[in-house]
Amino acid sequence: MARVYNFSAGPSMLPETVLKKAQSELLEYGSSGQSVMEMSHRSGVYDGIIKDAEATLRRVLSIPDNYKVGFFQGGASTQFAMVPLNLMTTGAADYIVTGNFSKKAAEEAAKFGRATVVASSKDKNFTYIPDVKAISYSPDSSYIHICENNTIFGTRYVELPQVDGVPLVADMSSCILSRPTDVSKYGLIYFGVQKNVAPAGMAVAIVREDLLGHAADTVPTMLNYKTIIDADSMYNTPPCWCIYMMGLVLHYLEDEVGGLAAMERINNAKAALLYDYLDSQSFFKNPVEKKYRSIMNVTFTSPSAELDKKFCAEAAERGFVNLKGHRLVGGMRASIYNAMPTEGVEKLVAFMRDFERRNG
Amino acid sequence: MARVYNFSAGPSMLPETVLKKAQSELLEYGSSGQSVMEMSHRSGVYDGIIKDAEATLRRVLSIPDNYKVGFFQGGASTQFAMVPLNLMTTGAADYIVTGNFSKKAAEEAAKFGRATVVASSKDKNFTYIPDVKAISYSPDSSYIHICENNTIFGTRYVELPQVDGVPLVADMSSCILSRPTDVSKYGLIYFGVQKNVAPAGMAVAIVREDLLGHAADTVPTMLNYKTIIDADSMYNTPPCWCIYMMGLVLHYLEDEVGGLAAMERINNAKAALLYDYLDSQSFFKNPVEKKYRSIMNVTFTSPSAELDKKFCAEAAERGFVNLKGHRLVGGMRASIYNAMPTEGVEKLVAFMRDFERRNG
Repeated sequence: MARVYNFSAGPSMLPETVLKKAQSELLEYGSSGQSVMEMSHRSGVYDGIIKDAEATLRRVLSIPDNYKVGFFQGGASTQFAMVPLNLMTTGAADYIVTGNFSKKAAEEAAKFGRATVVASSKDKNFTYIPDVKAISYSPDSSYIHICENNTIFGTRYVELPQVDGVPLVADMSSCILSRPTDVSKYGLIYFGVQKNVAPAGMAVAIVREDLLGHAADTVPTMLNYKTIIDADSMYNTPPCWCIYMMGLVLHYLEDEVGGLAAMERINNAKAALLYDYLDSQSFFKNPVEKKYRSIMNVTFTSPSAELDKKFCAEAAERGFVNLKGHRLVGGMRASIYNAMPTEGVEKLVAFMRDFERRNG
Repeated sequence: MARVYNFSAGPSMLPETVLKKAQSELLEYGSSGQSVMEMSHRSGVYDGIIKDAEATLRRVLSIPDNYKVGFFQGGASTQFAMVPLNLMTTGAADYIVTGNFSKKAAEEAAKFGRATVVASSKDKNFTYIPDVKAISYSPDSSYIHICENNTIFGTRYVELPQVDGVPLVADMSSCILSRPTDVSKYGLIYFGVQKNVAPAGMAVAIVREDLLGHAADTVPTMLNYKTIIDADSMYNTPPCWCIYMMGLVLHYLEDEVGGLAAMERINNAKAALLYDYLDSQSFFKNPVEKKYRSIMNVTFTSPSAELDKKFCAEAAERGFVNLKGHRLVGGMRASIYNAMPTEGVEKLVAFMRDFERRNG
């Protein structure tokens, strides 16, 4: 057995040093005599773990004091409902649709009010991001919702919609912690943790405090941001292990990587390895408009569906796994989140060159 | 460092052999070259894990074919909303209140319809279970809701409400898998996993199939049982690690313990060690009506709050942790779930005798 390079879109790789630390203390955390998986969430030792995880997230992301942080269950899919249930105070909101998940978010919001799709890149199969300055936003919109990085299509925003007095809400599931983020530009950021942060089973929301407390009484208690945030994410038993793992990953980012600016340099370099190679030949193609290329998810196709299949099979034999693209796009997708070592991308590019030579 | 006896009400102990197995394959599961925490939930290897977990749960609990199983996030607290949102088809439901959590469930249901508290044991601080045959149920009730084992108060039902044509809904968070259950007596069973099944971060619902598909269109997609169940708990990324750990615990129950009948014999014997001792002396007192004593949570008080405090402190020094009772009851509580070894209870009773001798 040897560890593989896992290019999965999520869940995905975790830093090996983090996994080894979790393994070493799995039966006994510190001097507690217990696994983190066994601890009462109301115990002093677990209180230390959850408080440290939030404090480290705040430090690493430079979250301003007027933003609250909450740990939620149900993934980004539950956030799709929570955002309108808590923030759609005018009964209306604007959605920019740039892929599958922003479409789902808009459809979910339409259950609870007027969710207007003010722009979409569907016309070119989501290979670009609409010009946010050319969009006509609704005058009564409670918020503008975007999905900042589109996992399936391999695009990302390079400019954010900024409308005076209208909070920006962003699903950052597949780009959070990949580079510094100016949190003050957003009203609410949410992300499922399973791509860049921790094992699956949690979503985090970072909410500007003036946006809390406006949910109707008929909103389920657990879908009210205020319930969880007012209780420091301890209203009920939280996903204790996910929070612990997130803490380990954040300390790794802070202490071993050197923070988000350093992480961005590494991520830009990793993505450049793939994009520079893709641009240097004509066997593989990346369909995304260059300006909007994601640094987390790199899509490409070979000349035929048959060769795509052959590529994925041969790659898997060599320890490059989960390279098959999403069915909405076809071809291949290399998800190169924070925990993917540069070496993994270098070796993948070498294999792509070799495959191209043999099949081109 | 040594592992302690953790009497926490939940999260709580996991079998040591399960923890060791999880530890041994934490970096590489089988020949996958990945941690279970890193795997794509859509991969073949993870598909095997989740399908095996459900199949083993079905075997261990003897779940009939006309019941569907779903894995949810948000704990039992989210189930408190999902039950009425999915099952309250007449706009009314009956709740029996026997403690803190059944009270919360009734309060949450009242957001969505007429939730009638048809019986309560609050008059004697929840030290008994109302006679289910003497209750006047509402004629238009969509279901009858109970909390089958009351973690805080240390009581459990010994007879179930059975009303023709009215489904019984049971929160079994603190008693599931502690003994055989006749699932066919229920319309819906739900439980948070963090007491007897797996680390915190998941709830399981077992739903009679005719009760699915009646939610209104305005119910959040993720709070519709049908969404998750129709997708085999893969509508979105599930809590992969919790599901894996649940599978390990279920195999332990099946293969090492010998199934739920064997587990019940062990649990009855463990509880008898404590109750027999409590009944044999007058220093410690258990307030629960004998017939309704829980075999999972055993509450007791010493002659004074000061001695209670001294007891918990001395116990912790000896490696018996989390014995402090809930603030609603005071005193002590020993939660002795499946994974608490008989030896742990024997040693606790020996310590109680010693404490009684020194302080009585």
